[in-house]
Amino acid sequence: MTPSRPQPAVQARRQFEAALGAANVFFDDTDIAAYQDKFAIDDEAHHPAGAVAPATVEEIQAVVRIAREHGIALWPISRGKNLGYGGSAPLLAGSVVLDLSRMKKIDYDEANGTVLLEPGVGFYDLYDFLQQRGLKHWLSTPGNSWGSVVGNALDRGVGYTPYGENTSKICGMEVVLADGTLVRTGMGALSGSPTWQLYRYGFGPCWDQLFVQSNFGIVTKMGLWLMPEPESLMGMDVEFDHPDDLGPLIDAIAPLRREGLLQQSPTIGNWLRAAAVLTTRDQWTKEPGALSDSVIKAIRDKYKVGWWGVSLRLYGRESVNKAAYAVLEEAMNRLKPMSLRPTVWKRGEPLEYSGWTGTPITFPMQNANWHGGRGGHIGFSPVLPQSGSAAMAQFKRTYERYREYGMDYQASFAFGERHLINVNAVLLNKDDPAMMKKVDPFLHALVADAKAHGYGEYRTHLDYMDLVASTYDFNDHALRKLNERVKTALDPTGVIAPGKSGIWPASARRGAA
Amino acid sequence: MTPSRPQPAVQARRQFEAALGAANVFFDDTDIAAYQDKFAIDDEAHHPAGAVAPATVEEIQAVVRIAREHGIALWPISRGKNLGYGGSAPLLAGSVVLDLSRMKKIDYDEANGTVLLEPGVGFYDLYDFLQQRGLKHWLSTPGNSWGSVVGNALDRGVGYTPYGENTSKICGMEVVLADGTLVRTGMGALSGSPTWQLYRYGFGPCWDQLFVQSNFGIVTKMGLWLMPEPESLMGMDVEFDHPDDLGPLIDAIAPLRREGLLQQSPTIGNWLRAAAVLTTRDQWTKEPGALSDSVIKAIRDKYKVGWWGVSLRLYGRESVNKAAYAVLEEAMNRLKPMSLRPTVWKRGEPLEYSGWTGTPITFPMQNANWHGGRGGHIGFSPVLPQSGSAAMAQFKRTYERYREYGMDYQASFAFGERHLINVNAVLLNKDDPAMMKKVDPFLHALVADAKAHGYGEYRTHLDYMDLVASTYDFNDHALRKLNERVKTALDPTGVIAPGKSGIWPASARRGAA
Repeated sequence: MTPSRPQPAVQARRQFEAALGAANVFFDDTDIAAYQDKFAIDDEAHHPAGAVAPATVEEIQAVVRIAREHGIALWPISRGKNLGYGGSAPLLAGSVVLDLSRMKKIDYDEANGTVLLEPGVGFYDLYDFLQQRGLKHWLSTPGNSWGSVVGNALDRGVGYTPYGENTSKICGMEVVLADGTLVRTGMGALSGSPTWQLYRYGFGPCWDQLFVQSNFGIVTKMGLWLMPEPESLMGMDVEFDHPDDLGPLIDAIAPLRREGLLQQSPTIGNWLRAAAVLTTRDQWTKEPGALSDSVIKAIRDKYKVGWWGVSLRLYGRESVNKAAYAVLEEAMNRLKPMSLRPTVWKRGEPLEYSGWTGTPITFPMQNANWHGGRGGHIGFSPVLPQSGSAAMAQFKRTYERYREYGMDYQASFAFGERHLINVNAVLLNKDDPAMMKKVDPFLHALVADAKAHGYGEYRTHLDYMDLVASTYDFNDHALRKLNERVKTALDPTGVIAPGKSGIWPASARRGAA
Repeated sequence: MTPSRPQPAVQARRQFEAALGAANVFFDDTDIAAYQDKFAIDDEAHHPAGAVAPATVEEIQAVVRIAREHGIALWPISRGKNLGYGGSAPLLAGSVVLDLSRMKKIDYDEANGTVLLEPGVGFYDLYDFLQQRGLKHWLSTPGNSWGSVVGNALDRGVGYTPYGENTSKICGMEVVLADGTLVRTGMGALSGSPTWQLYRYGFGPCWDQLFVQSNFGIVTKMGLWLMPEPESLMGMDVEFDHPDDLGPLIDAIAPLRREGLLQQSPTIGNWLRAAAVLTTRDQWTKEPGALSDSVIKAIRDKYKVGWWGVSLRLYGRESVNKAAYAVLEEAMNRLKPMSLRPTVWKRGEPLEYSGWTGTPITFPMQNANWHGGRGGHIGFSPVLPQSGSAAMAQFKRTYERYREYGMDYQASFAFGERHLINVNAVLLNKDDPAMMKKVDPFLHALVADAKAHGYGEYRTHLDYMDLVASTYDFNDHALRKLNERVKTALDPTGVIAPGKSGIWPASARRGAA
């Protein structure tokens, strides 16, 4: 269990109210409930003490000062929609959530295709903003698009377009440190620079990625690159009939991705990833434990989904896309898919509402209803090589674990340029105590299985941050110790998100979970 | 003038010799001369005390321990070929050069197209290594290819292929900190991970870019991505007749670069960038001061070079390249160039020896002979927006400064994805005292001109690191102060490269130059 800090003194709350106005300080029971993790395994583990919602950098600096004075830990959230990984809840129970969702400024540089965003800007906000200006640039939206653009990039979330690895499109930040100092990174360190959002590295060490999945500062502005609207979007949705098709499919896509013919990073999803947003489990079976092959077959037949499916997309000039499409089509047909549906769009035609066009979507969150009851999911997301045999072994190992624990296997293998992220969703019914009891040992088993093969998670739920950090163990956890030296130098008392990504200040270090 | 530290005591040299063998410790006068900056404006400014050349991580750790014990500052170099920016010389006179050129291990992952390199591996070493294995991956070589692959990426050097921004292809590092701790970044922090060179971010903050242009650690291994050999290479060399052609050329290329039709980052160079490697100034004029228009015309006529020239290249499938070529050709012809020479290569044909094919080259260094005498050059390299009007203004401003100081203007505008780096080479004759006397005020004027327009350098010579760092002045130099807090936390006495990129430990802070 997570240790908790004492509730902030009345005096601290008064100071927050004086600084932000009483309307932006939240310490009632209903407030606290509102900031809990809706998908939590253990509702008690990450209770916030309350929340404060500043609207400006100056107000954030005031909050930080008050928190420092009273020994309060702050848990910054952008819009708090990091569902499956902790939502809006703090790691350390008793922390005050620093809710930045009121900060919604957008600076758009249309000529260069960049934005400078505050953390409260959601994907829908930015989409509306760009649509009003003719949608000359597209977003890269994740499956749950009501979250924050900045928050998603800060947790290394991904989208579906060639700009899908959002964190790699960050260009310059503004950050408040634990002592209240305001820092700008990259070219933003040069006052009034017109290149802040154009060249990310600046002069000397580049800090952007040190503030990602981090507790070294509070990001108050983030530069981000946007994809120019392409002339054409072509591609294909391909379904595969057998579990064993995964390996050859990965080995066919990987070289095309590395050579750059495919600029977008496709995701191979299993049948349940497709079906869990279309139906619910009780429509098909009342049997406990993992689904049987016959039920899986019935669901797949109804919705005509493969055991695995993948969508490939090409963005750019129509003539170039046509030439590249022929290469993709040949590569996919060699694998004898059960179906291959082409898709074509040209500038001027109406846009499909999907992640492929960077349109905000929320239907993937429907999978939380799979089991009925108060639904939820939690992610297990190790990084793998782009190797068919490695992915097949990981799939088989994980699938067996799901069956052992009686869970329904929902998985995807998302390509980066040279890696795969194997996102496994553990679908939950919080009203099923027997199921909920199994989740924690199940996730421990999955983390241990991955570690035994040299794999680590790219991102994890609050409950597992210490555990996952502990798997990054080279030279007696030298990297974590380095992080903690910096944390201690910048934030010795742990004002900002102590424990985030397993990083604690020296004063608060606790053992791995 | 740079302050100097006292010469290391005899005892320290004895300890270095005991740790590394006497053959790898260099403190004679000829040794010291060998490690000076060959292109220095002031030969006295950056005298090393000597050099040590460890061959292993353990030896580096021993050197760091001895240096700490004796208060010696180390200046790590990979192969010391950072010419124009300081070569192998330390910023702080009296430092001991930590020469890593004996560390030449190459680990090649052919399936994934990655290497794990030690700092001593030169571009020629890696090219030979890959060529012996069929050259299935290409390098991204800079104009001076006898330098280190790791060193080039660490100083944010660039090449000419789609992998030309070398620093952005870094994936995972191994680093020795000032206290001797060995750290691995990214997935390398997970012992035995097969994904160290495949996914760069790891879990939590990603450190790679914090060790770039930095003195926070000594990089002992670097993961780097290599471009798969393309099926086809197509492109064109285009020359433009008038100085004013620069603006429209930039505005034509920039959108093609941002939309990704052009994956490679082209460089627009002026006539002298082409001519200074083909001839010498005394063949054309004995007149002092900047060259007259008539001399420029004569040289351009002889070598048929434009006032500006650019090479555009497409890498990939032949069918895709052909479609993209048509788009490029139309865009260039609209600008009415004085010449447009197509170039075509297909896999299996002999490869051109050029940066476009990632072949190591050294002929660009010929420009050091332009003035005769002991030649050299020094770089002035501000970051600009990809805007024709901004680039034209910067060109005109800088050209006037060159004329004011009687210098011959050699310049290029190198595209990144959303920025330009305007590399200006100041060509020198170290045997011309009148010229050498002008260089320092000239560079100060150039830095001040850039700063007045919000532009800062991406990289600079040792002499100007404090000056350039001082232009990154947002919020009273908050970023430099942040760097110095980390420097002080990790290396309080300044064992590793004090002053690099303007970063000093608290104990040694000095004012900006």
